[in-house]
Amino acid sequence: MIGSRLINGTESARISADDRGFLYGDGLFETMAATDGKVRNLDLHFARLEEGCRRLRMPMPSTGVLAEECSRVLEGIGSATVKLMVTRGAGPRGYRPPADPTITRIVTSMAPRPRGDTQPPLVVRLCQTRLGQNPLLAGLKHLNRLEQVMACAEWDDPEIGEGLMLSLDGRLVCATAANVFLVLDGRLVTPDIRDCGVSGVMRQVVLAAARDLGIPTSVEDVRPEALDGAQEVFVTNAVIGIRPVGELMGVRQWPVGEITRALIPRANGAGA
Amino acid sequence: MIGSRLINGTESARISADDRGFLYGDGLFETMAATDGKVRNLDLHFARLEEGCRRLRMPMPSTGVLAEECSRVLEGIGSATVKLMVTRGAGPRGYRPPADPTITRIVTSMAPRPRGDTQPPLVVRLCQTRLGQNPLLAGLKHLNRLEQVMACAEWDDPEIGEGLMLSLDGRLVCATAANVFLVLDGRLVTPDIRDCGVSGVMRQVVLAAARDLGIPTSVEDVRPEALDGAQEVFVTNAVIGIRPVGELMGVRQWPVGEITRALIPRANGAGA
Repeated sequence: MIGSRLINGTESARISADDRGFLYGDGLFETMAATDGKVRNLDLHFARLEEGCRRLRMPMPSTGVLAEECSRVLEGIGSATVKLMVTRGAGPRGYRPPADPTITRIVTSMAPRPRGDTQPPLVVRLCQTRLGQNPLLAGLKHLNRLEQVMACAEWDDPEIGEGLMLSLDGRLVCATAANVFLVLDGRLVTPDIRDCGVSGVMRQVVLAAARDLGIPTSVEDVRPEALDGAQEVFVTNAVIGIRPVGELMGVRQWPVGEITRALIPRANGAGA
Repeated sequence: MIGSRLINGTESARISADDRGFLYGDGLFETMAATDGKVRNLDLHFARLEEGCRRLRMPMPSTGVLAEECSRVLEGIGSATVKLMVTRGAGPRGYRPPADPTITRIVTSMAPRPRGDTQPPLVVRLCQTRLGQNPLLAGLKHLNRLEQVMACAEWDDPEIGEGLMLSLDGRLVCATAANVFLVLDGRLVTPDIRDCGVSGVMRQVVLAAARDLGIPTSVEDVRPEALDGAQEVFVTNAVIGIRPVGELMGVRQWPVGEITRALIPRANGAGA
């Protein structure tokens, strides 16, 4: 059955109203794709979570326990989306983290999302909402997501599937729930995320796959004007893999190009 | 009894794990002081909450209902701290806010905190953790509080009662859970919070009280070096009122000065 949830290993739908994840967004999450009852790139997700715990100074839960809980929410399911949340748990009042926190683990299985290459190319827009910059939190998939929420509230045209977001100082950084790649004169370019944006697992996979295929890659600052000159554009996340971008709404269109097509089998896997 | 909690009007200690407050920090809060069973400055708290709802495009719950819930958690209690949280509730998966959200209201009473003038002057330090800047969220008391959590994790010396925080570009902005005021050559100065920091209810009360007493006030950019030349320093929040700062740990000491003493009765009220 799709939709089961384990909270600290027990089936439950509710958390303590004293959980610091709720009070302060004091936690991290991973959104993952499962096919054939197995989470794709689980090691990479765990590695990112571990890095997030290290940077937030939270103890990392046992990966054995987390893997077992992922398996349990996938029992009897072929494909699913699995969301894993880890918070600093309940604690004494106030921002100060408890010295010895009791971490909360929440593992949820949900309906799968179609792989990006099985869908029509995405229509995107440029969001007004900017990403505040803070190197301390940059790259982390933490629970402070108000900027993304507000960016998504900007439009309701169902034709528009994603919004591209700029940093406060005007660089193109990512989409609301995906990383972004541009092909510029044969190079595969993705924005630097040193002070905002998320270090996507699929972003890593795509960069590694491109290097493997001999495609020149670059992580660099990208001005939004670079979209004008891009030959191909796509977005990535762990759930959809690569999804080609077909149009910046009303401004520019792109074909699904050669480099995108070469990378899709590496990123999106065999199953659709 | 201290410690009662109403979730949407019902006594409960748990919230849905699908609540957007938990998933994304998609909500707001007020922390308030109650004496004689009444919340102080309730209208100002409601006004700030309403402004927050407007900016986050969330419907504001009825103030009548909220006031009644505050009264209920205060039944039989003299003094308390009351925390009011409002989130965008549970909704469909993804960052996009539902068009017609069911707001979650959480009202909790907790033990009171002593008023700031009944405590020894505070010892503070300067935090390494900086505040990211984003005008979109600045001023709001929203649930994305990881920066404050990380700032508070920096020290464990129990003599240090608060940490002062700088913006990413190096301005002195606030303490982790309070606004900050400096007396500079007879003027009462508090940092501008146009791109980070919280618009504190007690900050408003103190600015208004100072104007009322004929003390020149200024909201302006403040360099941390201004602390060197300050004649008086204090922090404020709705729970403690004004609390004098006696020392920047190991760097500088301040007496409880004339302007601080003149403002305390206006801000902290009669009851201790």
